[in-house]
Amino acid sequence: MSVTFAQGFSAAGVVAGISSVEGKKDLALVVNNGPLDAAAGVFTSNRFCAAPVQWSRKVVADGHVKAVILNSGGANACTGEAGYAQSQATAETVAALLGTDAGDIAVCSTGLIGELLPLDNVLAGAKTAHEALASTPQAGADASHAIMTTDTKPKTVELEGNGYRIGGMVKGSGMIAPQLATMLCVITTDAVVSAGQLQAALASGVDTSFNRIDVDGCMSTNDTVLLLASGASGVEPDPDEFNDLVAAACSSLARQIIGDGEGASHDIRISVTGATTEEAALACGRAVAASNLLKCAISGNDPNWGRIVSSLGTVPPDVAPYDSNKVTVDVNGVRICENGGAGRDRSEVDMTPREVHIDIDLNAGDAEATVWTDDLTHEYVHINADYES
Amino acid sequence: MSVTFAQGFSAAGVVAGISSVEGKKDLALVVNNGPLDAAAGVFTSNRFCAAPVQWSRKVVADGHVKAVILNSGGANACTGEAGYAQSQATAETVAALLGTDAGDIAVCSTGLIGELLPLDNVLAGAKTAHEALASTPQAGADASHAIMTTDTKPKTVELEGNGYRIGGMVKGSGMIAPQLATMLCVITTDAVVSAGQLQAALASGVDTSFNRIDVDGCMSTNDTVLLLASGASGVEPDPDEFNDLVAAACSSLARQIIGDGEGASHDIRISVTGATTEEAALACGRAVAASNLLKCAISGNDPNWGRIVSSLGTVPPDVAPYDSNKVTVDVNGVRICENGGAGRDRSEVDMTPREVHIDIDLNAGDAEATVWTDDLTHEYVHINADYES
Repeated sequence: MSVTFAQGFSAAGVVAGISSVEGKKDLALVVNNGPLDAAAGVFTSNRFCAAPVQWSRKVVADGHVKAVILNSGGANACTGEAGYAQSQATAETVAALLGTDAGDIAVCSTGLIGELLPLDNVLAGAKTAHEALASTPQAGADASHAIMTTDTKPKTVELEGNGYRIGGMVKGSGMIAPQLATMLCVITTDAVVSAGQLQAALASGVDTSFNRIDVDGCMSTNDTVLLLASGASGVEPDPDEFNDLVAAACSSLARQIIGDGEGASHDIRISVTGATTEEAALACGRAVAASNLLKCAISGNDPNWGRIVSSLGTVPPDVAPYDSNKVTVDVNGVRICENGGAGRDRSEVDMTPREVHIDIDLNAGDAEATVWTDDLTHEYVHINADYES
Repeated sequence: MSVTFAQGFSAAGVVAGISSVEGKKDLALVVNNGPLDAAAGVFTSNRFCAAPVQWSRKVVADGHVKAVILNSGGANACTGEAGYAQSQATAETVAALLGTDAGDIAVCSTGLIGELLPLDNVLAGAKTAHEALASTPQAGADASHAIMTTDTKPKTVELEGNGYRIGGMVKGSGMIAPQLATMLCVITTDAVVSAGQLQAALASGVDTSFNRIDVDGCMSTNDTVLLLASGASGVEPDPDEFNDLVAAACSSLARQIIGDGEGASHDIRISVTGATTEEAALACGRAVAASNLLKCAISGNDPNWGRIVSSLGTVPPDVAPYDSNKVTVDVNGVRICENGGAGRDRSEVDMTPREVHIDIDLNAGDAEATVWTDDLTHEYVHINADYES
């Protein structure tokens, strides 16, 4: 279902011959049929941001987006003016098909960095996708398949508010760092909301979801999260409920990225409590989530708490004040580190579940934060060393 | 030879039964026979620093060290007061054997975090080591073997100044981050120098060596670098020459760590030129060195410049001002990224040598810096996931 769960949206996912994988759906189109065309976006902070990011940032700036075209099979990043011209030509083609302005068409790309797209295939694919547009669950599902790269499964969300709906899709598996760890995401709603409301809801929702997951610590050049409102339900939502629902959609999609992280055999939830501030808790969680040594240990089913506390120890005291002699660490409910030293034996920890819970109590305050990461496996190295490109 | 290359030092490396590896040399003793006992030290900034670090920091504070006892097979980190008592008891035993004060005996440990040492074995080993003390090349070699953990070979250095010598040994293979990426290091000299001179030379030497290598981004709890002067040559060195020689010793040892990084199949030198400041160059080099995706690509012999520039793009503009459209990247002499986009085809790059040279020109200024890292291989994951502990 994904983006077509909300009323007022049609979508398509087609084979355009952009991906090197023969017969793979690699081009998606999402159209907002109104009556509203309110939109908000959040983009990568990478200084080598891709041409489609440069294009779409401008498109979203005025709060209006009529359609989004997305492709896998090529990131169109580090492609200079020629790459930017490709994004623009793609938007112009979609605009002509829809009878609107190119300035209302967002463009997203994902795939290898540094190569131009096969533009003829993209533009022909846009026409094919336009012909295939539908508001059916299948059309939404097709779109969510077309944006996959190393993802092993599509990632979608459907949520119902009081008289309105939210749908969404995301792709992302590697190059996932906690600075907008997303790759490409489109969330749709049929609620009656303004662009300003959308931007506030999205920024807040992203902050506690996509910005709190880490597969490999690598920031992408193409990260884009778009939130589009059609207003087709005719319902003006309660602002708090709407914000919560957008945040829930982001969290669900972020969690699905972790569940499909490249090569991952364990999804790791790191909760830090007892911090002086939420920022302090977040800094500690992110430090632990970034530890290659811990992530290898977890892939070997060892709840190696030494690698947890040695990561905590890298967070500067002014960022996260705590006393190392008061820190406790539970893994899957077993307190294996007590007062900064050995607690119960780590052999007591059941590491068979895919989900691993690391609960760190700094015993320094009342603030907390949760981040997610994956373990580091042979398969991750295989995917990123032995790939064909 | 290692630490016994400089006159006035004796050393030993013995089997003490601390390591779980049957028959492995696991305890080293290095004694400064004078006439001087000047010393300097640099330690990990990890807030969960090990008991021997807490102990040795105090010992070195007054600029005098008579001997250093080092063990592999256990880090004595996160072991609380009982761990500190073990470090102190070890120092007291060595002090009694040498007829000096425990306050002049530094202690270093490396191995698993979170467990106490088998103290009886350590103390008995100290006696065995004391009996084995010698100033021979073999004694120095034995010491360098005794501190190895996942190291596959000992790492030593011998340099000659104008009438004086510098020797040294280091251990380190994993848990190597560019904040004192060392684990354990002892450098000796027979030059006549004060503790103040030693501290200045060591701080400067470490800054451009151990602080510029990164195996896996993980900071250790036990990092210790000691520089000891016996004055036995009777030569007061030219200060600049001495500083350069200490820096050269540190660089040689740091380079050896990279050459023996856990599971590494490529040693990667990342040189950043054209930066506005050395700090900016260093920040860019470290960002690239920390990229798991790039390190996987290199292990697969792919000079994936997209993963280089996407890492550069994570450095904030206020830290390293540059224009992404002016950046060039050469890998092993082939300019595969020009003006922030594709340059020559990456298939032209010969990736067969173990050493890979990544030369990044930011074209923004005249400052430069070089950092080293290793590739990320299946074997790294194997060592850190499937280990026995």
